Amino acid sequence: MNITDIIIKKKNNLELSKEEIQYFIDGVVNKTIPDYQISALLMAITINSMNERETADITRAMTFSGNVLDLSAIKGIKTDKHSTGGVGDTTTLVLAPLTASLGLPVVKMSGRGLGHTGGTLDKLESIPGFNVGLTIDKAIEQINDIGIAIMGQTMALDPADKYLYALRDVTGTVESLPLIASSIMSKKLAAGSDAIVLDVKTGSGAFMKNEEDAVKLAETMIKAGQSMNKKVTALITDMDEPLGEHIGNSLEVIEAIEILKGKKEGRLKDVSLALGAEMLVLGGIAKSAMQGIELMERNIHNGKGIDKFRELIEAQGGDSNVIDDYSLFPQPKAKYHLKADKEGYIYSIDCLSIGKAALITGAGREKKECTPDYSAGIIMRCRTGDKINKGSLIAEIFASDVEKCKKAADTIKNAVIISERKPEKRSLIIKTLR
Amino acid sequence: MNITDIIIKKKNNLELSKEEIQYFIDGVVNKTIPDYQISALLMAITINSMNERETADITRAMTFSGNVLDLSAIKGIKTDKHSTGGVGDTTTLVLAPLTASLGLPVVKMSGRGLGHTGGTLDKLESIPGFNVGLTIDKAIEQINDIGIAIMGQTMALDPADKYLYALRDVTGTVESLPLIASSIMSKKLAAGSDAIVLDVKTGSGAFMKNEEDAVKLAETMIKAGQSMNKKVTALITDMDEPLGEHIGNSLEVIEAIEILKGKKEGRLKDVSLALGAEMLVLGGIAKSAMQGIELMERNIHNGKGIDKFRELIEAQGGDSNVIDDYSLFPQPKAKYHLKADKEGYIYSIDCLSIGKAALITGAGREKKECTPDYSAGIIMRCRTGDKINKGSLIAEIFASDVEKCKKAADTIKNAVIISERKPEKRSLIIKTLR
Repeated sequence: MNITDIIIKKKNNLELSKEEIQYFIDGVVNKTIPDYQISALLMAITINSMNERETADITRAMTFSGNVLDLSAIKGIKTDKHSTGGVGDTTTLVLAPLTASLGLPVVKMSGRGLGHTGGTLDKLESIPGFNVGLTIDKAIEQINDIGIAIMGQTMALDPADKYLYALRDVTGTVESLPLIASSIMSKKLAAGSDAIVLDVKTGSGAFMKNEEDAVKLAETMIKAGQSMNKKVTALITDMDEPLGEHIGNSLEVIEAIEILKGKKEGRLKDVSLALGAEMLVLGGIAKSAMQGIELMERNIHNGKGIDKFRELIEAQGGDSNVIDDYSLFPQPKAKYHLKADKEGYIYSIDCLSIGKAALITGAGREKKECTPDYSAGIIMRCRTGDKINKGSLIAEIFASDVEKCKKAADTIKNAVIISERKPEKRSLIIKTLR
Repeated sequence: MNITDIIIKKKNNLELSKEEIQYFIDGVVNKTIPDYQISALLMAITINSMNERETADITRAMTFSGNVLDLSAIKGIKTDKHSTGGVGDTTTLVLAPLTASLGLPVVKMSGRGLGHTGGTLDKLESIPGFNVGLTIDKAIEQINDIGIAIMGQTMALDPADKYLYALRDVTGTVESLPLIASSIMSKKLAAGSDAIVLDVKTGSGAFMKNEEDAVKLAETMIKAGQSMNKKVTALITDMDEPLGEHIGNSLEVIEAIEILKGKKEGRLKDVSLALGAEMLVLGGIAKSAMQGIELMERNIHNGKGIDKFRELIEAQGGDSNVIDDYSLFPQPKAKYHLKADKEGYIYSIDCLSIGKAALITGAGREKKECTPDYSAGIIMRCRTGDKINKGSLIAEIFASDVEKCKKAADTIKNAVIISERKPEKRSLIIKTLR
């Protein structure tokens, strides 16, 4: 087999065989195929796409390109969740303690944030003492003990994805359905899950700007998972405005705690419970999504959910007193209140701009090497469709100095469109694909 | 400007601006754009193509990516010729002495062969003593003296093409009209010509297998040349069987000498004179192609053409006695006669296979580093449409040993299809685009 022939085949919009795809991924991992050939093939795939069979084959080849976690020491159906990423998207911190409190084994490998999307690890590290650096053995022990562990990726899982992802980023080949789907699914499958719930976002703050593309991506991922005998469910959810009201690391932990305490309703809770319910169904704990939601609501009201979060924090070395005293989180040096300069309806909130504003406050990472400011961020005090008056509070902004706050405020001001017209109501959970 | 944005633009099938194309070529030459980004853009161009304006812009940027020869010290209109390459394609050795003998300044930078296509330099080097390594100053002096010089490329002309060509070869991006056209035209334009005659081959032995693609390529090159105010004429000519009867280095020189002596008619002579006539027209020496052909025929019959070839050989240190005594060329150690195993019409001769057979005899280069066997090669003793008997001579084969001869003979046998049906006659000179 010859890589140039494989490239020419895909350039001519022909189907690649399983063996050709395996040869490509092997060559990526063994570094026998140079970058310029890899990127040429990635571009041909991006423009001419891959069919279902090819996508399943590249997913499988990537999954087994390195170690695959063996979670057989954990009893029960290991169910993972993946979100395509958004702003104020803290569902893991809500649904993981709740599903674990209902007996679902939660072994969650998370990532750090880059750019405007936050990472679960960064959020957890805003809790003083919290350690995300568990070995897999320690994590298995902890799950068998308290049913939950959230950690960083410690082993070299899916090296093919790591390599291709970095190259795609600089070669204009990010926006490819089969490459996105295989990247997400191979990572999850290498992490040893039996079942996966996908949260595919659509809207201004999502990678997939329209519903049609989001559904296509979801379907592609479901089929890739099914080809490896994994149960996969996908929700298509709205990311046309931030999901939660809090954006920023400790701020998002606080919002999750408020929901777990039963003190807060809203979009973040609704999506978290919808995802959690699908996990409970796949994990064999709930018979239906509706029953799953009822079970989680019950564990919010009886306190079992927040107790599980407390156990998780303590097991991983964190100060669980933050749950009762938010002042134990790192505190911002400066605050700023952005107010409306006219009355009307909040017509739209450009989600990507809010993410960028959070980056300006210091809550995100401009580059991989940076450490985020855990105390920085934004609390949105308005939602799309709200009727507001001149002078109404639009957002509270937190940062290390007032200059950053004001710069972020300018960005938010431009992102929040106030109109005389009331916007049409958008669905939050748009579709469920099982 | 940012190369990733440029790649994404072309991936999305959008037109690149002149500035973006210049930025790309600058980055290639300065090595500020890594190979993996260059190859991703090349693939996007190959699949989504470039329009006329983009092709003209990339041709111009490549032309000026290094030195451009200044031939102003040579009087007259410097007219060059380029062939897209074929088998038994020795037109330069026929038309260059003839047009020079009519007063057209011939400054010909040629290349060496690679694979099955021969190079003019290799052919000339089969003449004992012939030196192709002229400096540009020496070449200008020689042209002002005898009107003709044929040499290798001594200066670093068109470095962008050199770099892109090597990368295209290994990334499946060879077959792209705008990239082929800009590669050919930028090289010719950097070599300082005022006018260019293109010989675009079509058929089984050509890069462009069908006439439609050949015409498109010719039109693209003409427009790219015109955008830089150069006069360009293109002939579309047949390469469905070898052009000349001789294939191999000294063998092809001998065939050219026979034509210049007026001892041989046929396809090679017809195409050489057709191309030469267009050069004489562009160079202002003939008023029409027909007049150009008459002038060249006259200089064949009065011996001025072969005398000019003699002058050229002597000026460049070669032994011009080869013209009268072919035994002064390197001689092959083994010969073999391939005969027909049945009677019928020669229905077709697969040109690429004949080229491969020549490679087997040792006449070509498998790799860049190899030196060809100057004495090796093939004389085809049949042409498409010939009626032959069982036992008729198909080809004479020359190599360093009889094993190579027999291996080449097997390849030729499979390439020559003998049928009861007489094939349709193909045109030799299919189209002229001025």
